[in-house]
Order: sequence, then structure tokens, then C-alpha cells
Amino acid sequence: MSLKNMSDSELKSFRDKAASEYEAFKGEGLKLDMSRGKPCPEQLELSMPLLDILNSSSNLIDEGGVDVRNYGQLTGITETKRIFADILGISPEMIIVGGSSSLNLMYDAVARAVQFGVYGSEKPWGKCEGAKFLCPVPGYDRHFSITETFGFEMINIPMTPTGPDMDMVEKLVNGDPTVKGIWCVPMYSNPDGYTYSDETVKRFAALKPAAPDFRIFWDNAYCVHHLKDEHESLLNIFDEAKKTGNEDMIFEFASTSKITFAGAGVSVLAASENNVKQIISLLEIQNISYDKMNQLRHARFFGNADGLRAHMEKHKAILAPKFDLVNETLKAGMGDTGLLSWNVPNGGYFISVNTPEGCAKETVRLCKEAGVVLTGAGATYPYKKDPKDCNIRLSPSFPSLADLKKATELFCVCVKLAAAEKEIADRK
Amino acid sequence: MSLKNMSDSELKSFRDKAASEYEAFKGEGLKLDMSRGKPCPEQLELSMPLLDILNSSSNLIDEGGVDVRNYGQLTGITETKRIFADILGISPEMIIVGGSSSLNLMYDAVARAVQFGVYGSEKPWGKCEGAKFLCPVPGYDRHFSITETFGFEMINIPMTPTGPDMDMVEKLVNGDPTVKGIWCVPMYSNPDGYTYSDETVKRFAALKPAAPDFRIFWDNAYCVHHLKDEHESLLNIFDEAKKTGNEDMIFEFASTSKITFAGAGVSVLAASENNVKQIISLLEIQNISYDKMNQLRHARFFGNADGLRAHMEKHKAILAPKFDLVNETLKAGMGDTGLLSWNVPNGGYFISVNTPEGCAKETVRLCKEAGVVLTGAGATYPYKKDPKDCNIRLSPSFPSLADLKKATELFCVCVKLAAAEKEIADRK
Repeated sequence: MSLKNMSDSELKSFRDKAASEYEAFKGEGLKLDMSRGKPCPEQLELSMPLLDILNSSSNLIDEGGVDVRNYGQLTGITETKRIFADILGISPEMIIVGGSSSLNLMYDAVARAVQFGVYGSEKPWGKCEGAKFLCPVPGYDRHFSITETFGFEMINIPMTPTGPDMDMVEKLVNGDPTVKGIWCVPMYSNPDGYTYSDETVKRFAALKPAAPDFRIFWDNAYCVHHLKDEHESLLNIFDEAKKTGNEDMIFEFASTSKITFAGAGVSVLAASENNVKQIISLLEIQNISYDKMNQLRHARFFGNADGLRAHMEKHKAILAPKFDLVNETLKAGMGDTGLLSWNVPNGGYFISVNTPEGCAKETVRLCKEAGVVLTGAGATYPYKKDPKDCNIRLSPSFPSLADLKKATELFCVCVKLAAAEKEIADRK
Repeated sequence: MSLKNMSDSELKSFRDKAASEYEAFKGEGLKLDMSRGKPCPEQLELSMPLLDILNSSSNLIDEGGVDVRNYGQLTGITETKRIFADILGISPEMIIVGGSSSLNLMYDAVARAVQFGVYGSEKPWGKCEGAKFLCPVPGYDRHFSITETFGFEMINIPMTPTGPDMDMVEKLVNGDPTVKGIWCVPMYSNPDGYTYSDETVKRFAALKPAAPDFRIFWDNAYCVHHLKDEHESLLNIFDEAKKTGNEDMIFEFASTSKITFAGAGVSVLAASENNVKQIISLLEIQNISYDKMNQLRHARFFGNADGLRAHMEKHKAILAPKFDLVNETLKAGMGDTGLLSWNVPNGGYFISVNTPEGCAKETVRLCKEAGVVLTGAGATYPYKKDPKDCNIRLSPSFPSLADLKKATELFCVCVKLAAAEKEIADRK
């Protein structure tokens, strides 16, 4: 029964029950963190053999004859490029292997564009009055922080189960030359877990941007991060862009942060020949080389793309039960209240839930007061402003199953309490 | 006997002898590279045990309780900070440990200043018309490339054995608010190998910049890179700046690139509390953490600052004979011609030589034609323009002793040939 349909006394008794359950949780002195998509210790253990790959008697010469210990080879080593190229379905020449952080590669890509422009720019983005970035929402807070920091006006684009609202994207990109870019997490999106449909990818590839230097920031962070045996699949945007002559429009990013070690993986930027050439002309001022030793360590650990995919099965075995548990606990906890909606994702790192309007902030506050830290409400929107104050991103990866169950049960109680208080206040 | 004092026929016979020696070298089909300060394979071997420090059964929790495999700890781990703090004589709170490249940290520091300003900026450097950078010359080409790329006007400051011409530095920094920064390699300078005197450091610390956001880029790249048992010593600029209230004026940089692995070391940025706070506010948008696993590997390998210093003795044992050989070969090859001057450095990675005016480019060209690649003439000056065309940077570290002897002998012949041809042309 929905709160709206309850009598005042039914509503009050619903609230009182939630409040008393909440007080009970508070008494337990919980101290749990579900705020970020951090791999759990068991996941990190999966990659410990990576540390034995290189030792003091290893051959440190890569396939191309490069001594990985020394300076040089700015764009990365042959074998690591090949694995990423296979995973992303592109040629190794399109790949620049970076350091341990793809966020860093994305920030740097925006910073270069703002300061110097990208291939095809008439002037640096920073010299374009009122430059805008499109932000599918809910989305990834760290993306939005980058474009906010560099002063872009950010425009919300509603996400759907097939991807961003492409009518809106086409209208804005094709019609407005101040629209310079869009953030996309095309597979198992952060936070919804949606994979862009073939049609969406084709429509992206067929954009006719008003800005000659518009770029799609294709953050393929979860390209191999499946939670089910049946994998979702994402059309290769570079293949589609080749057909439309739009290859220069795409910057693709990925990393092994959620494959090997979150803090010591290998990242990658993939782009067209024109883009790579322009990027290198600036990158070679910034750096002589990224850590090729870690690149070699990764390449030898996986062997090839299939080795990497097999490794992901082990992550799945750890993560899938956690996602299932959260889903089941949400279902049981929310019952037929209709107070919470969410997508059950087939991959990625998050479960994105929607409370009734105006209840997300209060829910997160209540959880925190009872010892469970969630991603801040609003974080999934530019400027941290969720216009309806309803979206919350749950991150099931890090806590243990027991903690996760407890935290999710508390979460359900907090949603109910926040919603009941709001309904009571609304009726006054 | 100097060329100037030779008769035409003496000069011709001097030229002919050099030319015939040069042809003989050309016949040998040399293929050597003395262009960059790359550690040689024997130096890289010194750090191979670093690769055994972390393995699949290692404890990966740092002293602060942080799991180095996971995200977080943006400014670096406790034990690595402590070692760098000890080496640089500052407190660990002043340290941000970066990735494998201090060049990257320097580029990023300039990029942030241009885009956002530094602590104390009234506006971003990029919004200041005619912003200037002081460049002690000869200097490090990659420094100059950064400030050239970001559009600074670069002003040459002559180097002396005690450091940059401080009268000129004081006049420009204290008098001109468009002067935003200066590049310094204060110990075993690149390329001269000079260490700034105590007076020079004190005068730097006592600057009264016209720009409220002026910064000294103190690239202490060779702070422990001694070639002699008697070490030169550099005054701690932060200690001096504390006395003058100028702590915010300094960005210090260092790395282990020439201590462990050139391509897979650990870098560091050191700055005042105010600066670190401002930097973190932007760094946390760019990155979640640098590679803490490599930081831990380095900290455990060295144990402490003394362990690091002891490790440098092994480098000295490999490098000192190379520097001695180049020095001896130059002395023997140039004899009493007076055609070449150079400093015999007590540390660092380079020998900076000066040919007669207008002969450096031709010398480098001749060497290249005979199979020996040197750093391009002019590279040690902003815009690659050596106004006198006389400075050449020799990098003795990478080649073997035998190759080094051969390359240096060829170099001497090329200097003589270039100088003789020039003198002949001048007389016409």
C-alpha cells in the first residue's frame, strides 16, 4: 500500500514502526562504508600473483626490444597495447597506455582541450565563451567534477535503459556549437548499470556536431565487468564511426583498476590516428613515459585478452552474490510500499535507486547517523544537484555479505522513515 | 696554440689533419647515443632486487593502515613520504608523492597555475598578459619546453659556478609583476653540474617578488647524485625561506628515476602547507591516488634515507669512471687548442662544454654524420636558441666505457674540424 493512500493514522503507525526499527539499528553502532566502487579485499587477492610476474631475474625487455626499466616509449609497450586493443576491438596504434588512473587520463584530456584545443579545434575550448558539456544523469560524480572545475556549463541529459536521451543529445550537439563534449559510460553505466543499445551507439556515431571539435568521452570503465553468465554487449563505437567518417569525434578510456589493483593498475586512452598524433605532441612535453614495468607485469599476467576475460570470471564470482543480496534485501525490505525503484544491473559496480521525490538527502543523512556511509545524495548529478532529490548510488562491492545485508536493511528503514516523514509534512 | 694565432697554412694543415681523422672515424660506422641522461643497463641492474620486495605473500598494508592495492591516499603513503622528507630535510606534511615522473609533476604544476592560479594568485597565470619565466642558461630543455608550450615569454639568465646571476634574478623578480616563475636545478645543475652557493640560496629565499604568486621551480633532480666522495652540499631552501616568510614561494621536485628505474620510479612534489592544500584541491579532481604499491616497494627497498644514500654509492661506482674518462679524453683530445671549455662536475648527469662561438651546431652535425648522436645544439637554451651557438651537453651515463672513449674522441675531432672551418671562413 502506498503512503499516499494511507489514512493519517496508518501513515503515523508506518512512520512509528520505521522510526523504532531505525532506533534499533542506531543502537547497533554500525560503521560501514558503501560510498564508493572500491574492490573488496577478496577481489584484490585475486591479483596477488601479479606481484610474482616480475622479479630480480626477469627479462625486462618488451616484445619491441624496449628495456621497460628505462626512459622512453611514451605511448606504452607493444604487448599491453595489444591486449587493450583486443578488448576494445581497435588497432594498437589507436592506444596510449597510461599510468594507474584513467581518471587522470580523462582530466588531462579535458585540460589539454581547454588549454590547447583538440585535433580540429579552431581555438582552445577555454577560449570559447559559454562552452558546454552534456551530462547523462544520473552519472559519475568524478566526471562532473572535472568539467565543473574547468568551468563548463553542464547540461543534464536523462538516462534511459537504452542510453542517454538521444533526441536531446542530437538536438544539442548538432545544433549548438558551444556544446564541446559529452560524458558517457556506455556499458553497465555508472550508476544505473544500463548498456547503450545498438541504436544509441549508431546515433552517437552519426552525430553531426555543430562544433568542429566536439568530443564524446567514452569511458568504457566496465567493458568486461559482467555479473551474469549472459553478457550484455556494446556495439564498437569506432567501427560505427568509421562508417560515418566520425572517428576523430571519440576519446575512449578504460583501465584495469577494477580488474587487478584499484590503486596500481594500468589505464588506457584510445583515439583516432589524428587524435593520437595531436595528443602525443602535448603528452611528450608532459612526460617521457608512464610506468612500463607495470604495463609489462600486466601483459605477462594476463597473457592475452582471453586471459584477462577469464580473470574477470573470478571477480564475478565474488561480486554477483553481493549484488544479488542487495537486490533481494531491497525487495524484502521495501515490500509493496512502492517507495523505491531500481534497475537490477547485469554488470558494473553500482545499484542506482530512486526514492520518492525529496527523500534522497534525508535517507543518506539517516543512514550516516546510524553508521552507514553512502555516496552523497545529489552526487550523481552535475553540481551535486539532483533536481528531484531522489537518486542514490549504492556500491555493493566493498563490504562483506553480512555487512551488506545489515547496511541494506538499514537503508530500507531509512527510505521508509524519510518518505513517511515527508508525507506527514506534506499533509500539514 | 690557438687557431686565431695560426698562419693560414698552419690553419689549413690543422683543418686537414682534423678532416682526415674525421674521415677515419666515419669509416668505422659508429652508432652511439650520448644524447640523454639515461641510466645504463648496469645501473638499472642495481635496483633489480626492488622487484622482489613485493610478492604474492607480502603484507600490502602501509604504516598508516592503508591497503596500498586499493584506491585512496592521494598524497602518498607514510613511509615513502618520510624517506623523501628526510632526504629533502623537510616535514612529511609538505610532500606529495606522485607517479613515475617528476617531469609530469612539474608540467601539471605549471598547467594548474596557468589554468587556476597558485595559492595567493589574484587570477590564473594564463590570464596575465605577457607572463614571463626566468630560465638560467644553459639549462634543461624539458623545463623550457613546458613553459614554451604554455606560452610564457622566457628570459635567459646566465649561469655561473655559484648559480644563476642573482643580480639579474632579483632585478627581474622584484621589479616585474609579470615574472611568474624561474626554473632551477640547484644541485649539480643540468647541464653544468654547478651547485648553487649558500649565498645564492639565501638570495633566492629573500626575494621580494613583484608578483604575489611568483614561484621558484626548484628541481632538485640530483640531490643525492654525487660523483665524488666529497659531496657538494646545498642549503635547504625551505629553512631559509622560513626565516624570510617566503615558504609559499617554492615548489620543490625530486624523483627516484635516476636512483631506481628511470621509467618506473617514484616522484615527489614538496611545498608549503598553503601550497599543498591548494594543490590537493585540484589534484583530487584529477586523480584518486598515484601508484601506492610502487611507493611501498621503494620504501621497503631503501628502508630509510640512509639506505637510499647507500644505494647511490653503487651508482657512483659505475658513473664516476665514465665522467673521468670523458674528462680525460677531452683533455687529451683538445690539448692546448683552447677550443673547448668545460666544468668537471662533482655530481649529476652531464658535462656541459662550450665550443668557440658559432661551432656547436656544426660539431653536433658532424658527430651525427659519423654515427654519434648528441643532445641537439641549442637544446640547453629556451626556444632551442643558443645565442652564441657554443654550448653542447654531453651525457656520459648510458654508453659503455669503450663507446664513450670512442665517441668523445670523435667529438674532439669534430670540434676541431668545425672550429677550423669556421676560422677559415671568417678569414675570407
